[in-house]
Amino acid sequence: MARQSGISEAVLSGHTADIYFSRTQAVLRAEGLDPVVTMEIFPNDAGILCGVNEVLDLLAAVLPTGGEVWALPEGETMAAREVVLRITAPYSAFGLYETAMLGMLSQTSGWATAARACVEAAEGIPVISFGGRHVHPHVSARLEYAAIVGGCAGCATPAGAELAGLQAIGTIPHAMILIFGDTVEATLAFDRHMPAEVRRVALVDTFKDECEESLRVAEALGRRLWGVRLDTPPERGRVTPDLVKELRVRLDQAGYPWVKIIVSGGVDAARIRLFHEQEAPGDLFGVGSAISSARPIDFTGDVKIVDGQPIAKRGRIPGMTENPRLRRVDLSEVKQGIH
Amino acid sequence: MARQSGISEAVLSGHTADIYFSRTQAVLRAEGLDPVVTMEIFPNDAGILCGVNEVLDLLAAVLPTGGEVWALPEGETMAAREVVLRITAPYSAFGLYETAMLGMLSQTSGWATAARACVEAAEGIPVISFGGRHVHPHVSARLEYAAIVGGCAGCATPAGAELAGLQAIGTIPHAMILIFGDTVEATLAFDRHMPAEVRRVALVDTFKDECEESLRVAEALGRRLWGVRLDTPPERGRVTPDLVKELRVRLDQAGYPWVKIIVSGGVDAARIRLFHEQEAPGDLFGVGSAISSARPIDFTGDVKIVDGQPIAKRGRIPGMTENPRLRRVDLSEVKQGIH
Amino acid sequence: MARQSGISEAVLSGHTADIYFSRTQAVLRAEGLDPVVTMEIFPNDAGILCGVNEVLDLLAAVLPTGGEVWALPEGETMAAREVVLRITAPYSAFGLYETAMLGMLSQTSGWATAARACVEAAEGIPVISFGGRHVHPHVSARLEYAAIVGGCAGCATPAGAELAGLQAIGTIPHAMILIFGDTVEATLAFDRHMPAEVRRVALVDTFKDECEESLRVAEALGRRLWGVRLDTPPERGRVTPDLVKELRVRLDQAGYPWVKIIVSGGVDAARIRLFHEQEAPGDLFGVGSAISSARPIDFTGDVKIVDGQPIAKRGRIPGMTENPRLRRVDLSEVKQGIH
Amino acid sequence: MARQSGISEAVLSGHTADIYFSRTQAVLRAEGLDPVVTMEIFPNDAGILCGVNEVLDLLAAVLPTGGEVWALPEGETMAAREVVLRITAPYSAFGLYETAMLGMLSQTSGWATAARACVEAAEGIPVISFGGRHVHPHVSARLEYAAIVGGCAGCATPAGAELAGLQAIGTIPHAMILIFGDTVEATLAFDRHMPAEVRRVALVDTFKDECEESLRVAEALGRRLWGVRLDTPPERGRVTPDLVKELRVRLDQAGYPWVKIIVSGGVDAARIRLFHEQEAPGDLFGVGSAISSARPIDFTGDVKIVDGQPIAKRGRIPGMTENPRLRRVDLSEVKQGIH
Amino acid sequence: MARQSGISEAVLSGHTADIYFSRTQAVLRAEGLDPVVTMEIFPNDAGILCGVNEVLDLLAAVLPTGGEVWALPEGETMAAREVVLRITAPYSAFGLYETAMLGMLSQTSGWATAARACVEAAEGIPVISFGGRHVHPHVSARLEYAAIVGGCAGCATPAGAELAGLQAIGTIPHAMILIFGDTVEATLAFDRHMPAEVRRVALVDTFKDECEESLRVAEALGRRLWGVRLDTPPERGRVTPDLVKELRVRLDQAGYPWVKIIVSGGVDAARIRLFHEQEAPGDLFGVGSAISSARPIDFTGDVKIVDGQPIAKRGRIPGMTENPRLRRVDLSEVKQGIH
Amino acid sequence: MARQSGISEAVLSGHTADIYFSRTQAVLRAEGLDPVVTMEIFPNDAGILCGVNEVLDLLAAVLPTGGEVWALPEGETMAAREVVLRITAPYSAFGLYETAMLGMLSQTSGWATAARACVEAAEGIPVISFGGRHVHPHVSARLEYAAIVGGCAGCATPAGAELAGLQAIGTIPHAMILIFGDTVEATLAFDRHMPAEVRRVALVDTFKDECEESLRVAEALGRRLWGVRLDTPPERGRVTPDLVKELRVRLDQAGYPWVKIIVSGGVDAARIRLFHEQEAPGDLFGVGSAISSARPIDFTGDVKIVDGQPIAKRGRIPGMTENPRLRRVDLSEVKQGIH
Repeated sequence: MARQSGISEAVLSGHTADIYFSRTQAVLRAEGLDPVVTMEIFPNDAGILCGVNEVLDLLAAVLPTGGEVWALPEGETMAAREVVLRITAPYSAFGLYETAMLGMLSQTSGWATAARACVEAAEGIPVISFGGRHVHPHVSARLEYAAIVGGCAGCATPAGAELAGLQAIGTIPHAMILIFGDTVEATLAFDRHMPAEVRRVALVDTFKDECEESLRVAEALGRRLWGVRLDTPPERGRVTPDLVKELRVRLDQAGYPWVKIIVSGGVDAARIRLFHEQEAPGDLFGVGSAISSARPIDFTGDVKIVDGQPIAKRGRIPGMTENPRLRRVDLSEVKQGIH
Repeated sequence: MARQSGISEAVLSGHTADIYFSRTQAVLRAEGLDPVVTMEIFPNDAGILCGVNEVLDLLAAVLPTGGEVWALPEGETMAAREVVLRITAPYSAFGLYETAMLGMLSQTSGWATAARACVEAAEGIPVISFGGRHVHPHVSARLEYAAIVGGCAGCATPAGAELAGLQAIGTIPHAMILIFGDTVEATLAFDRHMPAEVRRVALVDTFKDECEESLRVAEALGRRLWGVRLDTPPERGRVTPDLVKELRVRLDQAGYPWVKIIVSGGVDAARIRLFHEQEAPGDLFGVGSAISSARPIDFTGDVKIVDGQPIAKRGRIPGMTENPRLRRVDLSEVKQGIH
Repeated sequence: MARQSGISEAVLSGHTADIYFSRTQAVLRAEGLDPVVTMEIFPNDAGILCGVNEVLDLLAAVLPTGGEVWALPEGETMAAREVVLRITAPYSAFGLYETAMLGMLSQTSGWATAARACVEAAEGIPVISFGGRHVHPHVSARLEYAAIVGGCAGCATPAGAELAGLQAIGTIPHAMILIFGDTVEATLAFDRHMPAEVRRVALVDTFKDECEESLRVAEALGRRLWGVRLDTPPERGRVTPDLVKELRVRLDQAGYPWVKIIVSGGVDAARIRLFHEQEAPGDLFGVGSAISSARPIDFTGDVKIVDGQPIAKRGRIPGMTENPRLRRVDLSEVKQGIH
Repeated sequence: MARQSGISEAVLSGHTADIYFSRTQAVLRAEGLDPVVTMEIFPNDAGILCGVNEVLDLLAAVLPTGGEVWALPEGETMAAREVVLRITAPYSAFGLYETAMLGMLSQTSGWATAARACVEAAEGIPVISFGGRHVHPHVSARLEYAAIVGGCAGCATPAGAELAGLQAIGTIPHAMILIFGDTVEATLAFDRHMPAEVRRVALVDTFKDECEESLRVAEALGRRLWGVRLDTPPERGRVTPDLVKELRVRLDQAGYPWVKIIVSGGVDAARIRLFHEQEAPGDLFGVGSAISSARPIDFTGDVKIVDGQPIAKRGRIPGMTENPRLRRVDLSEVKQGIH
Repeated sequence: MARQSGISEAVLSGHTADIYFSRTQAVLRAEGLDPVVTMEIFPNDAGILCGVNEVLDLLAAVLPTGGEVWALPEGETMAAREVVLRITAPYSAFGLYETAMLGMLSQTSGWATAARACVEAAEGIPVISFGGRHVHPHVSARLEYAAIVGGCAGCATPAGAELAGLQAIGTIPHAMILIFGDTVEATLAFDRHMPAEVRRVALVDTFKDECEESLRVAEALGRRLWGVRLDTPPERGRVTPDLVKELRVRLDQAGYPWVKIIVSGGVDAARIRLFHEQEAPGDLFGVGSAISSARPIDFTGDVKIVDGQPIAKRGRIPGMTENPRLRRVDLSEVKQGIH
Repeated sequence: MARQSGISEAVLSGHTADIYFSRTQAVLRAEGLDPVVTMEIFPNDAGILCGVNEVLDLLAAVLPTGGEVWALPEGETMAAREVVLRITAPYSAFGLYETAMLGMLSQTSGWATAARACVEAAEGIPVISFGGRHVHPHVSARLEYAAIVGGCAGCATPAGAELAGLQAIGTIPHAMILIFGDTVEATLAFDRHMPAEVRRVALVDTFKDECEESLRVAEALGRRLWGVRLDTPPERGRVTPDLVKELRVRLDQAGYPWVKIIVSGGVDAARIRLFHEQEAPGDLFGVGSAISSARPIDFTGDVKIVDGQPIAKRGRIPGMTENPRLRRVDLSEVKQGIH
């Protein structure tokens, strides 16, 4: 994960920071003030903590020797308002990065938490993140990484997979089938040219009835066909549990019991539970918006000690908040890529 | 906006693309297929279109001569399922970028649309985007840019302000006041060291009653005080319309009618309307989560013509969709930074 | 309509009457009582009046000379608690038939009212009643008749069509296509053997994608194809407005603009409005349960005058209720089949 | 039940069938096709199965030797989409009767299911069906029969009682009391002329306060009075639990503890539960609309095997559906009236 | 209204005041402090102002010469948080009475506001307050007075009527009829012994059906009968609009068109509107709980000026609140009973 | 409680009675009728019985020897429609007082029941009634008494405390602090002049932030400070659980752990539960409107026996209602003040 620890120059320079933090640094410098402060960071809602490793990379890059950091590990559950990160160091060393640290945590924790909800609903059926297309390419890899921290079994983009230490997963897009003009032709071409280790998964809702198309590709590829993907659009009623059940029986009756069924298109936790209730879960869920449109979980950073004195703004408790779950972080290890 | 047009290598290389698009390119190449296709892109919900300029930068960088692009302008309103972008070119030139193009549009259009809702509720009172801290620093500038496309009057990060061609706006953070231990001391230090063109805005909810603190800083800075910012935390009941009205009267009674009131902390369109209804709008709204947590608006890209033949997957209409609002884009101008 | 006026022996004998009416007749006879009474019949809810012609047939068969009957015409709107029928005659002549008269009115008025709701929602698109299969065959013709009184343009059973003076309308059942094993084969066979005046309407959701199948039958029958019927089952998402719009375009693009689209399967007034809102009404609606499962509209018969004296039970107003909409009925004409 | 098995000529001739079934028979005959098919019939909702005996009478009349029928028994509970009837025979023998068979099952199962809900709510207090007046006299006997299959203890029409093998039950109608002009006079006349085995039940809400009238008839008839019926109209607040409780006490205080209380008028399952909760159930419930206005339960007939080959339309599973609850029916016994 | 101005010794002595006001007086006296203060009193909700005359009586009894009082008149509408009373005087003169003044206003304004809602719903039909029995006899006269301030045409208690300058209104209680054992006997006795100016109104729901009883008393009293009162208890379905309509017709048919109908028992504004909608308003409404159970409208007293200096607690605006609707009160006139 | 038993002349004279009771007495007297009657009194809703002692005082004053009274004790729970009081005596002795007796019970039982709900929610934290200011001073003592019967630990007015046999409880009003112009000054003055047994409780939301003010008064009074009262107005977000928690910590951190926290301002049972849920209950709750605005619980008085004969109006059961919870009351003891 060498790549992940590469904090960008825009962050390090404060270009992405709220400008009042730069100004604060200038004022404190002019006044000759640089107290050691303790800042605590906590989420406003419960969820799955994500992004903390990237924050530690940042802190490892900027904190002087003697800076002390306590944190919950990446991927842990966290309660609302539970302190997940505590930093003690001269304020000049890290005050500028409050915006960046909160942002790294907020958005990815939101995604990881949404992913976890889908994964729990799936009760063991693997869930793959397909939501990269709903977010800006500058963060799509972070989205995919967060989905995997939240429990997803894979993701669609190489950049995200690299962050998470996996291989990207994919089937065949509608565009390719439309160019070939026939699902079987497109799938056969895919089969001809792709390396053996790539699974053959046909997309079966482009031109014909999904069951008819599935039987056609199964006949054409036989044992080489790993699975079929159902992605019926809302204009045609989306993928229903009944369709999955019917397709399973028709594949089995026709002699293709090994062909797996992948369900995608508007899948979220509620819908996954519906497939389970109707006993039609399929073999894999592809989830997009249900993860990528998750609200960020707001995080707040509070200065709680200044030069040894407990302090707090109105509405908060002065001094350090006890949290026995926090672990002391060795920043020198973080610099070496050990989290 | 030279910076904006710099499409990153990760995007250009397909590293952030769903992997099946790379595989499609490989298969088509191996089959010797490269038809001219027309792809149409449309949103699933109505809103404010954002990100199209960045997509055009990408297309200007990759499309060959002869590629034809029609688009709605940045910042336009768009209807649900209205085609906002139509590309006609050899598929090999742009098929790989479907993920990136949709992502550029989806997330920023979601933000711009949410910003517009706040701006409309504010009925002329300026709205500033303060939400950079809720998203990853890699996209915080895009968020700020989208907020301004949606109608915001300013934003907090230099990176976002640069994208939008403005100056960043900021006050004083709680952390600085906590370090000084007194709001007046912190504000006076800010006043001593900041250039004249930076507005003096005191944050008045840190230690004392907001009205008491406002009068203290007004007395200390006099005419140099541009305004005060109310950011009362939820633990203390947030900023209420009554507080704004009371503070206005107390400032006026004490002889500080020029001091403006900035309202922040959990502000959204519904709450802005409430301030208006109770005739306590203040002079500026600072909005964070209400913009930064907006759902992406999903966009879809459909291949509609292949080598001149109308085609479509099930559920869609084959062939070109009429939309007289689209304008032909001159990509050579885009390359020169003209949008 | 000679058939309609044939009141069955089971009704005339009192076999279908609530037994206390037979006993009442016996007691009154034993006591030597037979006053002239005025009975008024009114519905508990507003709706479309149906069944009154059948009631008049019954009264024409049983009332002595001098009996006086006032009624609203078949198919009129009626208000809640509006008197729709007033009978003045010796009680012994008609008291036994209260159960039958109320039943004739209640159930068919419920059906006619539901049919009217669909017809009004359809705004001129014809609606056909297909609901015979949800009611007992002894009343299915009455259901079809009531649907037509309510405004339907046709019905599916010969018995119902005969009552209403029309021809039955039908397409092709799923069973026939399953026996032929192919939609085109079945439709061609239908075309070979049916008389010219029977419209050729193919059912296109049995085996293949509805659009694909529609184009296949259109190619096979050409100008002889009058229309296609969409009846997609709930397991496949039912018929959606988008499907109708897509099919219309695909038929037109392929050169079959004359082929009409019939929409059936779970169609009710709300859904008809949805098709209109989405500008996809099709050319004909087939409605089943939305009419056949309508609640009967309860009717009540009140004795209001006995031998010239106004009277009423508690809760009702004694004496005749004014209703200028009522028309005096000539029962001798009714006997001749004139309504 | 000889009467029940008399399937009418209108049904046998196909006159009540959807016309496309007649046309299908004609086409198949012209094509020389008559495969052996298996059709399965299932309800769309759970409930109480009714009408299956009448369907078996029909099948016994039309199926050739060798036809095979499996069914659930009359009055059984059935799950949604559970196969309740399976027919295997040449299609020409029974295809025409799909409309009639579904109709026989749908409407009566709806009624039986609604009756069961009332009977269960009554927790042992007998429920009598009084709803014949809300349906056409051609099916009122079927309604009464279905109510008894659903658990009712009796019904009001002789025709319905005959179908169910019982005696009809009745009290005194308002019309008779209005003709006599006094409840006591009417009840005494009834008592004078009715055979001893008919229960004397006075209707006590016509002219006077219900309690006052009850005491008057009790005084007049003494031990011969079996019960009183409360039928207070909605204009006077309907029968309330408090009225039942008060009447019980007043009858007991006045020395008529044997007089039973029958509750009627707008009674449904929810209201029966209310009487129980308030400890005022009375001795008998008369139920009308709550049963007679029940929605038919839609049934569907699917061809699942054609000449030994599993088949199904889209959305359904090809081949026979396992259901161990089905019992093989001996049609020769059915012909002899044994169900 | 000499009686009203008699402020009780318990109030004047501070016995009914919150004890901290007595203590405040003691502390201020001990400290030698007695500033002139301005106190403003406002309601938290909109409504009808009541009780201000009694407050003025209190102030007239305690304020020294020079005390200044501005007020809205009794019975005026008031907006939420509108200042309705402003007192300027030495604090020692009236500070002790804050509890009493607020209490006089709160409870009676709540009642007057509820009365107004009923009166407005009645659209001209007179409304009489019958709610004295739901409040303690020490305030029942205040309740009746407030109801009349709110627009009621009369009340039931002599004490309340005296406060309002009217005569009490009454009919006959159930207890009297139960003692006589017959409604007609009781009403005739009432007629024999009551002075001529007392209206004869029979209560007709005690023993018999309301219509039957009404006709009996009408026959017995003839032209001397002014009206009948319907008070059917909830156990018998309360008074329904249908009952009023039926009774009107039966009285008219029997030749008693002059007999008025009074509706009581659970009447509130919503129910009054229902009677109007169903065109059965009767001639008079008797309202109890709908007025007597009204929530008090909380009033608050704020010190806004102390010795000429504007001041206010947090949350309130320092200094005098403009309200051009206030009128200067001449306390010397108040002492003479002039309001 | 000698004071309580002093029934006022206005009650004894019938001046506060509904006038029809006076007229009834006149008519019965004129007719020479004075039967011994049994009247039963019951509430329409469940709750806490209050006011029965005052009713007994009244009965002790008016009933002749031989009058018999059964009652539930003051403060008992009572079921809806449970008889709580039964009086047997000549009607002339008590009929006039029906209005007064019902009123004494209705309003105070409503208050006691609401108080009980708060006390139960508080789970042992004491609740003080502060609602005297929302009701007329003629009943404010009755309100306070009822609150204590319902379980409150104290009340604010001396009159109410006297009725309940307690001492009134109070802190410092906003008015006093506004007059002193500083919370610390006001509290020190209070401390100087109040007797030692009066608890020193500072009101801390008048001028400054509540926590800042609390620390200031704690420093000024030290160990003499018993507690602080939070009464933050709605304009500033009311008292939140977070504020209580924060203040507790800040007091403890500053070395004032003995200072108690009193919570007031819009406190009701739901809000008390919220404080418990968030683990911030404080040490005392001050409750106003939640008790004082409780609806009266309507009580009804029914004559059930007249001269030994069971009787009742329609809707009620004639004769005595069994209730083994009732206790025979010795009125001679009541006259001596023994309840």
